[in-house]
Order: sequence, then structure tokens, then C-alpha cells
Amino acid sequence: MVVLLREDAAPEQRAEVAHLLAELGAHDPISLPQESGAWLLYLPGLTYTDAIIARITALPQVARLIPITTPYALASRAVHPDATRVRVGSVVIGGGEPVIIAGPCSVEGEDQMREAALAARDAGAHLLRGGAFKPRTSPYAFQGLGLRGLELLAQAGAAAGLPVVTEVMEPSLVADVAEFADVLQIGSRNMQNFPLLRAAGRSGRPVLLKRGFAATIDEWLLAAEYLLAEGNPHIILCERGIRGFDPQTRNLLDLAAVPLLRTLTHLPVLVDPSHGTGRRELILPMSAAAIAAGADGLLIEMSPHPDAALSDADQTIDPSTLRAIAQLTRRLRAAITDLPPDPLPGRDGEKRECGTSSAPLPEAMPSLPEELIGSGY
Amino acid sequence: MVVLLREDAAPEQRAEVAHLLAELGAHDPISLPQESGAWLLYLPGLTYTDAIIARITALPQVARLIPITTPYALASRAVHPDATRVRVGSVVIGGGEPVIIAGPCSVEGEDQMREAALAARDAGAHLLRGGAFKPRTSPYAFQGLGLRGLELLAQAGAAAGLPVVTEVMEPSLVADVAEFADVLQIGSRNMQNFPLLRAAGRSGRPVLLKRGFAATIDEWLLAAEYLLAEGNPHIILCERGIRGFDPQTRNLLDLAAVPLLRTLTHLPVLVDPSHGTGRRELILPMSAAAIAAGADGLLIEMSPHPDAALSDADQTIDPSTLRAIAQLTRRLRAAITDLPPDPLPGRDGEKRECGTSSAPLPEAMPSLPEELIGSGY
Amino acid sequence: MVVLLREDAAPEQRAEVAHLLAELGAHDPISLPQESGAWLLYLPGLTYTDAIIARITALPQVARLIPITTPYALASRAVHPDATRVRVGSVVIGGGEPVIIAGPCSVEGEDQMREAALAARDAGAHLLRGGAFKPRTSPYAFQGLGLRGLELLAQAGAAAGLPVVTEVMEPSLVADVAEFADVLQIGSRNMQNFPLLRAAGRSGRPVLLKRGFAATIDEWLLAAEYLLAEGNPHIILCERGIRGFDPQTRNLLDLAAVPLLRTLTHLPVLVDPSHGTGRRELILPMSAAAIAAGADGLLIEMSPHPDAALSDADQTIDPSTLRAIAQLTRRLRAAITDLPPDPLPGRDGEKRECGTSSAPLPEAMPSLPEELIGSGY
Amino acid sequence: MVVLLREDAAPEQRAEVAHLLAELGAHDPISLPQESGAWLLYLPGLTYTDAIIARITALPQVARLIPITTPYALASRAVHPDATRVRVGSVVIGGGEPVIIAGPCSVEGEDQMREAALAARDAGAHLLRGGAFKPRTSPYAFQGLGLRGLELLAQAGAAAGLPVVTEVMEPSLVADVAEFADVLQIGSRNMQNFPLLRAAGRSGRPVLLKRGFAATIDEWLLAAEYLLAEGNPHIILCERGIRGFDPQTRNLLDLAAVPLLRTLTHLPVLVDPSHGTGRRELILPMSAAAIAAGADGLLIEMSPHPDAALSDADQTIDPSTLRAIAQLTRRLRAAITDLPPDPLPGRDGEKRECGTSSAPLPEAMPSLPEELIGSGY
Repeated sequence: MVVLLREDAAPEQRAEVAHLLAELGAHDPISLPQESGAWLLYLPGLTYTDAIIARITALPQVARLIPITTPYALASRAVHPDATRVRVGSVVIGGGEPVIIAGPCSVEGEDQMREAALAARDAGAHLLRGGAFKPRTSPYAFQGLGLRGLELLAQAGAAAGLPVVTEVMEPSLVADVAEFADVLQIGSRNMQNFPLLRAAGRSGRPVLLKRGFAATIDEWLLAAEYLLAEGNPHIILCERGIRGFDPQTRNLLDLAAVPLLRTLTHLPVLVDPSHGTGRRELILPMSAAAIAAGADGLLIEMSPHPDAALSDADQTIDPSTLRAIAQLTRRLRAAITDLPPDPLPGRDGEKRECGTSSAPLPEAMPSLPEELIGSGY
Repeated sequence: MVVLLREDAAPEQRAEVAHLLAELGAHDPISLPQESGAWLLYLPGLTYTDAIIARITALPQVARLIPITTPYALASRAVHPDATRVRVGSVVIGGGEPVIIAGPCSVEGEDQMREAALAARDAGAHLLRGGAFKPRTSPYAFQGLGLRGLELLAQAGAAAGLPVVTEVMEPSLVADVAEFADVLQIGSRNMQNFPLLRAAGRSGRPVLLKRGFAATIDEWLLAAEYLLAEGNPHIILCERGIRGFDPQTRNLLDLAAVPLLRTLTHLPVLVDPSHGTGRRELILPMSAAAIAAGADGLLIEMSPHPDAALSDADQTIDPSTLRAIAQLTRRLRAAITDLPPDPLPGRDGEKRECGTSSAPLPEAMPSLPEELIGSGY
Repeated sequence: MVVLLREDAAPEQRAEVAHLLAELGAHDPISLPQESGAWLLYLPGLTYTDAIIARITALPQVARLIPITTPYALASRAVHPDATRVRVGSVVIGGGEPVIIAGPCSVEGEDQMREAALAARDAGAHLLRGGAFKPRTSPYAFQGLGLRGLELLAQAGAAAGLPVVTEVMEPSLVADVAEFADVLQIGSRNMQNFPLLRAAGRSGRPVLLKRGFAATIDEWLLAAEYLLAEGNPHIILCERGIRGFDPQTRNLLDLAAVPLLRTLTHLPVLVDPSHGTGRRELILPMSAAAIAAGADGLLIEMSPHPDAALSDADQTIDPSTLRAIAQLTRRLRAAITDLPPDPLPGRDGEKRECGTSSAPLPEAMPSLPEELIGSGY
Repeated sequence: MVVLLREDAAPEQRAEVAHLLAELGAHDPISLPQESGAWLLYLPGLTYTDAIIARITALPQVARLIPITTPYALASRAVHPDATRVRVGSVVIGGGEPVIIAGPCSVEGEDQMREAALAARDAGAHLLRGGAFKPRTSPYAFQGLGLRGLELLAQAGAAAGLPVVTEVMEPSLVADVAEFADVLQIGSRNMQNFPLLRAAGRSGRPVLLKRGFAATIDEWLLAAEYLLAEGNPHIILCERGIRGFDPQTRNLLDLAAVPLLRTLTHLPVLVDPSHGTGRRELILPMSAAAIAAGADGLLIEMSPHPDAALSDADQTIDPSTLRAIAQLTRRLRAAITDLPPDPLPGRDGEKRECGTSSAPLPEAMPSLPEELIGSGY
């Protein structure tokens, strides 16, 4: 079970509950602040006897005890009925408006980054992406500019007024990257790099966690749980395609993961159609599909000179395509949220029980009409 | 190469070309009528020497010779730049408006089918689906009502004024099924049942060809080629999910296949979110995603009493959800086609060449604005 | 539950039990003869109340009622503790000695087949394979010689004194193929072609059932159940690789399926390393691995002139390699069966219970020493 | 190209060539010592003009220039025709005799490790395994004893006279782990943790590199290239199963990777049937299959009290089963290497060319007879 404290609980009241839990379980509970001002306290492994439940719920600052039925607790929608909103500067990820993160695959130089940043902003991007430390399959491929790249990325972001997102690959560099980046990206190859997850969680920075090549949804949410368990609530998931058997596309974009995650977790979900398809001409339609599936935004490789990119040229689009995507996503989001009232499956509790595979009842998203509750959106 | 005859070529002129090809290749060519009134003649294995090309192109009724670079010829977009429209009664599949095929998994009885047919029609469906011959993993599961089921399906369709789609599982039954059904469905398990493909092709009926559990795009288009090679141009593809590793969903819906097929073939593409996800609450969002990805329509399991279905109850939606899907798909389609002009990648031939994985330049779709040409839509 | 009749039960006593079951379940039970002379009677869907159990077990000709815990019944090891032996002429598949089925991919002509048959026999093959009806991904690829090919195959087998195995692709041809072939092969693409399975089951001929490209073990055994449910006990399974993501090999050979099937079913299991790898140089080592894993034999593409084969040249070996494989498999089988006594996991019932994934206790294989019971061999 | 120096090249002669390459390519080449005493020098990205080739080959200490046709160079069999032997204490991995690494999943305590170490040794194991830092999918699962676990592992190994293998999960801990471990293990989740690969490579310790969940053979060999490129020649590969779609087994063991790697690389290959199947009863047969496929050894989870293991109990065997495996592997290896002379495919260069998928001609393995050259063994 997870203990939810009242929003008006004072710090010393929070400490009191934490102390009680530590006493009951012989070690300290995890403490996770909520956007609302409330706090979650979680002590893995503690068995909740009636006596223990009585002692905890007797405390006035305890709002309620939340039972957990999934392998992950803090990432579960059960503990956080509303969708989590992650604030990055003035941008809100998960707030209802699709957020676009765009930029080149790699930071290659000052002029390239500055030009790309301005082009991304003008095309409608909300955040700037760019790789300074590049995970490359071959040790002989361009590995990125490293710390120098971080500086150039931060400067370009500042010049364009866009917060920046970049990947961090090892625990010992988290502090350096966090100094320059507004959002830390954990790449697919590192989704289960647990020391890195712990370090990124401790940094307190928003973290964008990409799905692993062959990760199940549960494994992905447990990786997010590593981040949350460090007391960092600012976690964003990003579907970027899993390994498929057809060489026609670089990866197999699993868009059903988007509405499925809606029913399982409160964390915002982005989609990366660039790595998800590996093909330039598929990025506009799959961006549209991602938003229609309910994604909170997109992570896209864009460059003013796509064909000159040192890496991922085949999947890099130009600014005019990004602008078309930005316009289209707004139109599609409106088409979804303006949906006229209609009863949908999942609203009727009884009906949900029947299906052997029906998922736990998800909660409302502020950005969607009542009628879409339980639809997976 | 494929020989394209002029639309005004007389039957005897067509025969003349066919005769010439047979003479050159020692057997008869495949003859495929086009919606436009033109004909395609194809003689697999014929080597086109300059002399042969000269003799063929010298004939006035020959419009042009079309070179083929893919393992499939008749299914290739190269031989048919415009999107193929398949007419079923008054419904046009591939004409720009999303088409919805809905109905119960299995035909279970007269009242059930009639009620389902009327509910489907009232919710906005254009065709009625229902299984009379059911491919079931276990020999002990309900196998469908067979021929009696076909009659009930046809009666229900007639009562609701909806053409009907149903699956055929063996060559010897194609004629019987074609007598009752407006569209023959070939299921995933039979995508490479070649005798069945030949028989369905010969029937002349429109055929809905589902993708196999583990079929590559090339294998799927070659299965369609079996149908086309029998002289049947009325072929519809349907993505229904491939085998995945995550038990959370029944299958892994590969929506990127939709825009990818746009660039490779002229055949219309539907999406089946029911089998593609296996979860009721994911069907609305994935229907929206499919249309946003450019699908020509949807194949959905719907029943007035989903929880009472003898098969696939977990993935069967109710009429009100179907109505919401029908409304949403129209709104989304409009959002795509009203997209304001914008240059997109793929329009610039040079740019396309650069990427190692960039696909052949796709042709215009009448239902999409100029600006989307080459975008995969 | 499955009813096991005593070996000495007279036909009228069998009829008596069948009649009783039909009366209890309102339709006829499946009747499956056993090698021992005993019979299995199975009535799917019948609920066994204490009263029903009492009535059945009261009959003297009933040996026992066998409870079923798997989706398949007749294929389950529970109903048939000993390994099933399938006799083809003088060859026994599943009898302990590795059986080798070899021959060209396709029947191409009289001399080719005769030469291949003699070479296969001289290299140590026990049965001859050859394709007369070929399932080809492309409609334009060589499709086999059809009925003429069957004649040539049968003649070549007779000349070499080898029984023949060949694929049948459609129900209406089962009788024709059964006239020439000693074993009917159902290919991967048709593993769930249910009308074909029923027809092959009714033929009474031994059937070699290949695993589908993306079939789970349960789906595969349920396909075998279709054959057994027609009263045909002579079923052989063949692992031939599933779809993988690495283009280095044609398929992904799942050898763990061999010992796993040992624990789940009594049916013999062969391995096809030719399709399983698609690479000539991998066939000898993977043949060795298959036998070491406990396979009952091998299905191998072999030709006196591998590089001249019209199909599958890359995975076709020559007679001298086949001879090396035949020698090696005998030596490996001996190395396994001569294993000195040693307690192994799975012999201790308690220990088996503990593991969440531990499988039902398998029964002894006559061809393996006591000590290997429960080892998966 | 890779420059191979003569075995009798003096250090200053080596420096001379390195200096020349640096001068030609403007940065330092990679320098990799060979077991023979020879050295490989590799400068990625250097274009070898005739002039450059002439200058290099003119040096007396240069044995030859080796052209590279694969994405990996130092891992390629082309640069190292003989199989690499990795020495760990008195044990040789890749020397012909199957090596067994056994021990518990996790180090849990002093007595447990000591008992396990003695049991492993007595059952025939050559090295001791045990996890001190455990990568766990859930942050709430037992994470291992850390540095204290390393001490206990090293003590237990010393007591039993067995070198020890243990996993390292982050670059900053490589030095600590290398202080206690004879072999550093890089786990599947970290196969593409590039900073970790570089650090492990620099440590100079033998490294056991497990295949990633969804890694292609090329990606795996490129990960090995990261290790080799740091000048560390002591690399061991370990196949441990990839992600499959069938829940019956934990992973899908890809044994064809073993003979395939033989043709592509000179590095020794082990197989882990414990993680590869996740089922206790499949470990003996799959160990046998691995050795028959040509594996250089096995990595197995074994405990005197399997059912009491804190992790992986379902896939942990007992000492008596390990003993049976050790005996069986020796018998099987003998059965392979005693194979009588027989011409095999791949010996004839011409024949190899024909197959589109035939691999580069592999070189002899000292431990296998001439006749098996090119067979994939």
C-alpha cells in the first residue's frame, strides 16, 4: 500500500508518518511530492496488518491508504488518478496540449545548433533536442562533442528561448549534464541501466525515459519506478519503437502502448516517430497517428539541412515538415477533445469486469471530455 | 515489365498484344482490368530485349511499358499511380472517406445478426461483418454455423441495407461463400494458403486480405499478387496486428505499415483494431490512430451485447462506441485533408535519393491535398 | 477427462463406453486407438460429475479416467505416459534411434529424384523427402511438378527402398497425395489451415506437422489436436525455426522446444535445420545440437548437386555432409543414452512444485535411462 | 585494413608503425596484442591508398595488411584465423575442452557461497559465478550484497581453488570489481552500455560479454569491438537467449548463434542455458545441445539448495545435475572431435560462393579435426 498524505499536512506531520513507517518496517519509506502539494509515502515490503492500517489511518494528516496490485507502485495510476503534468520552464508536458521536442540528432557545431534551434522554434517546437553524448553501435562512429556539445546546446536553446533535452549515458556525468540540460534523456539502450536511473532520479531534473528495444510495458514502468523511488516525480515516458522482423522500417512503433499506458500510469507519454520508423516519409503520418492515439507530444529529429546530418539523416525531417506536423497535431488534438458526448466502454464498471483482459478503470484526463473516460485516451 | 494498354484499346487489340506476349514468352500473360478501363498485361519471366520492347511499343494500343523493381508487380504502385478504389455496392473503399466494416465476431443466430446489422448501420457502419466459418485455435471451440451462418449473415445485411464481409477458409467453399458474401475475407492464418488465394482470386469477388501473424510487408504484397495474378483487381489489405512479446495486448498493431504501404502499393488499406489489440478500451484510440495514419477504413468487432459474445468478447465494443468511432474518424480525416499547403519531404526528388532507406516516390492520392504527396499519406 | 480403455477391451465393450458418453454428452466422443491396443475416448465439453465418474469407472473395460489440465487433451503427455512411436514401413520414428529424412527441396525430374534417393539412402537416410506441390511466397516462383512430381517421388523412393514424405497444401488433394506418400507433411504456412488438418487427420496416414512461423507451443499442440481428434494417432511434430529479427539466418531455430515438448506431449519431435537456419554451413552443427537436445530425428534438404537446386540451394547440403551428420547423430545419441546414473532435477516431486515455471512431471522415455526421467530429455 | 606485425617485431618497431599510421591518419591507432606475441594495429577511417599500402608494407616488421569487410574489425575472424584462447588462472576458455562456470545467481552469505563453491568444484565446474551487484527489473527486489558480496565471492573461490566471474554494472565500479574478480561479466541489459564497455576494456581483465535481449549478431560483435578497441584481447561471448513470444520459456535460446559466430569471429562463445530457458528441467538437454553446437563452455546457475535461492530459483539446478552435465559435455565434445574424416560443405571455395547467404570461409579450430573446417563448428 501507498500512504497518501493530505495536501495541508505540515512537514513535521509528514515526518511523523515517515517515522512511524520506518518503525514498522525497520527502514525509511520512499517520499514522493505531488504536484498538488500532497505527498506519497511508500515502504516496499511492509505487510499491512489491520493493526498497522489502524495506526496509520488514525493520523489526521493521512488522507488514505492506496492498495497496489501492480509490480510498480509509484508509477501506477491507482496512486495518482489525474494525469501527471511535468513543467519544463513555461512548457507543460501532459497538460493537454501536444508538446513537440525537435532538433538535430547530434550537436555538431555552434552555427548548426543555433540555426536548428531557431528553425525548431519557428516551426512550432516547444523544446530543443540535440545529442552531445551519442550512444553509437560502433566504437568507430561519431560519438558526439561531449561537454562542449552540452554548452553549444544550452547556448542555442537560450538563443531560441527553448528549454533543452539531451541524453546522459553514465551516472558520473549526470551532474554535468543536469547543469546544462532542462530535461535528462535516458536512451533505449540504458532503460535498464539501473545505476544511471538512480543517479538521474536523484538529480531532481525532469527525466525523459525511452522504452528499451525489447522492453515489456511492465519492465518500462518498473524502470520509471526506479526514478520515482529516488523521490523524483518529474518523469516522462517516450515510446520509440521496438525491435521488429521487417527490414522495411528501423523499428516497430508500438502506438497501442500509448492508450494502454493511459490506463496503467499517470505519467505523460511522448512518441518518437523518427527512431520509431527510421524513414523520413513516415514521420508526418505517424506523428498524426501518435497524437490521435492520445500521446502528450512528439520527439522528432529535425534539421535545416537533413541530408547533411552526421547521423540519422534518413530519419531527419526539415523545418517545413515540422511546421506541418505542429499544425496537424493541434488540429487532431482538437478533433479528439471536441468529441461530442457519447457513452463509451469502460464507463460501466460491470461491463469492464467481464473481459478477461480488461484493464483497471483509468481516471479522467483534464484535457479530455467526460465521455472519453475509460476509453484508453 | 508490365504492359499498360490504352483505355480505348478494343478487346481484339488487347488480344493482339496478349498473343504477341505469349508468342515471345511461350505462355499466356496475366491480364488485369483497370478501373479506368485500361488493362495491364504481365508475363512473368519474360526478358525484355530491345527488339522485344520495340515490337511491343510499336503497337498503337500500347500506352507504355512499366519497369518493375519489386518482387511483386501488379500490386506495385509503379503500375498504378492512383490509389485503387474498390466498389462494394454503393460503398467505395479507397475513395477518401473512411469506410467502417462492423459486426459480431461470429454469426450466432438470426435475431443476433439482424439486431447487430441494424445497430451497425445506425452507428455509421458501411459494411457488415460476421463469421460463419471460424478459424479456431482449438478443435473443441465453437467453429461457426457454416453455410447456415452465411444465409443469416446475408439476410441480416439485406435487412439493414449493408453489403456483407465474411471469411472463407478453403478453396472448395469459395463458390458457396461468394454466393452470399459481397467481400471474401482471407484470414491471417491463411495469408499464405496459396490454393485458397488462387480460388478467391478466380472468384472475381472483392477480397479482403489480412496480414499474417509474422508476415513481412513484401510477403503480404506477394500474397496480394497471387490474387491479382488471377485477374482480380478488387483487393483490399487489412493490418490486424502481428505477434508481439508483451502479453498485455493480444497482438502488436503495426500502424506504420499503413503509410508504408501507401508508398509501395495502390491497394486500399484497412486496420482491424479489435484483433490488433484484443482489448476493448484500446479500440477507440487505435481506430483514431489508424485513420490519422492514413488508413482507408476500419474492421471492427461490434455487438449490441458485447459481453454475451461466444467469441472475442474482450475485444468487442458496443454500438455507442462504434458511433463515437464513426464520428471521430470523419473529424480526423477532415483534419488531415484540410491541412494547409506546406512543402513536405519526398516532394524533392534529389532529397529522397540521399537516404539509404528512403522509399520510391509515392504518387498522389486523390483524397489528399497536393502538399501531402510523398509524405507517406 | 479422457477415458482410457483396457487393452483387452472388446470392440463391443468400446462401443458400450462410447454409447454411454454420447448419452451423457448428447454427441459422439472422439475415439483414438493406441499403439498398445488400448483406446482413448474423449468427449470435449462433458462435465464430469461424481455420478458420471461413478457410472463410467463402474464399467470393467475402463482402465481409468485421465484428468486434463492443458488446452489440448489427446496430445498431452498425461494421456500417454510413454513416447508415441510412429511406424513408417520398417522405420520407427520416436523409437530411440534418430531418424533422418533427407532429399531435395523440390522434385525436379526423374533422374534428379532417383539419384537423390540413392544418395540419401547411401548416406544413411531412413526416409526420402521431396516437394511436388511447393508453397512459394511468390506466384511467379517454381511451384513444383504437382501430381507428376508425386509419381516421380514415389518411384524414386521405391527404387531406393525408402518411404517418402511430401507436403500437401489443400484438403481436396489429400487423397491423391496419400496415394503416393507414406507420410503427409503439413507445412509451416498451413499449421493452422484447419480444413487441411481435418482432411489429413481423416486420411489415416502418418502426418508430419511443422511449426508455424510464429506459433506458440500451445498453438502447435492444438494444431496436432485437430489431427488426433480425427482418430489419427500417427502424428509427428517438426520444429523448423520461427521468425527472428536477425537477417543473418533465415529463421530462428528454437531447439528448447524439443525438451519442452518432451514434458508436454508424447508425440515424436523432429528438427529441420535446413529451414531453421537457411545456411548450409550451419546444418551439421545444428543437426548435432538437435539430437543432443533430444530430437527423434532430422528433416534435411540434401542434393547430389546442391548448387544446381531450383529452390533453397543456400540451405541444401551434399551427400557426404549428410553421411557425416548420420554418423555424428548416432554417436551423440549414444553419448546421451549411455549417461551413467545420476539424480536429476524433476525426479523429486516436491522440488518440482516449488518453481513457478516448473512443468508437469514428464514420464519415462523407453530410449533414455531412468536417470534422465524428468530432465526434459 | 588492419596491420599485422610480425611476432618478432620489437617494441620500438611497433612504435614505428604506430607513429607512421598516426602520421597518415592524424591520430593514434588502436594497438591489440595477440596471444602469439604478434600485434594488431588498427586505425579506423584511414583510407589505404596504394602509396600508403606501399609505405606500410615496406616496413620489415609488418607481416601483412588484412582487409576488413565487416562493420567490426578486431573481432573479425579475418584478422585472427585461429580461435582465441582466453586464459583465466589455469583454465583456458576456447582451448577445445568445454569450460563450465557455475554458481548461485546471487551471493547471499559466507556459508552459502563457500558451500556452493565447493559443490561446484566437486561437480566439475572450472570457474565460480555469483552476483554481488544484481541488475533487477524492480527497484524493490534484492539488489545483491555489493562490495561485501565481492569479498565473499573471492574468498569462496579461493577456498575452492576456482577463479571467479561476477557482473559489473557501472564504470565507476570496474576497478573495485576487477580487484576481486578474475573475469568481469557485462550483462544483457548493459551490452550497449558503452561507457561501461570502455571501462571494462581498459581494465585489462578478461570480460564475459552477454548478448542483449534483442541484439543482432552484428550489434553484439560491435559491442565486443568496444572492448577490443581498448586494447583488451581477453573477450568471451555468452549467448543467453533473446526475447521470444512464447511465455513457456523465459527467453529464446538462439543456439544457431554459436556456429554462426564461429564463422564470423575468433572469440570464444559460451552458452547460458539457465537464463536461456528459465526452466530447471530444460538445462541439462540444452547444455548438451550447446556443446553439440560447438560452444566453448557453459554458464550455469547452480546451488546446493536451489529452491531456497533468493533469485532465479526456477532456473537453478543442484550439484548432481551439474555433475551429469559436466560428464555429458565431455562425452559430447569427444563425439564431435572424434568424428571420422569426411568432406564437408564450405571446404570447397567455389561451392561457398554460390549461396547468396553463404558466410566467409572460417578458419580451422585447433580442437576440431580438419574435416570440420568450414562446417560452422
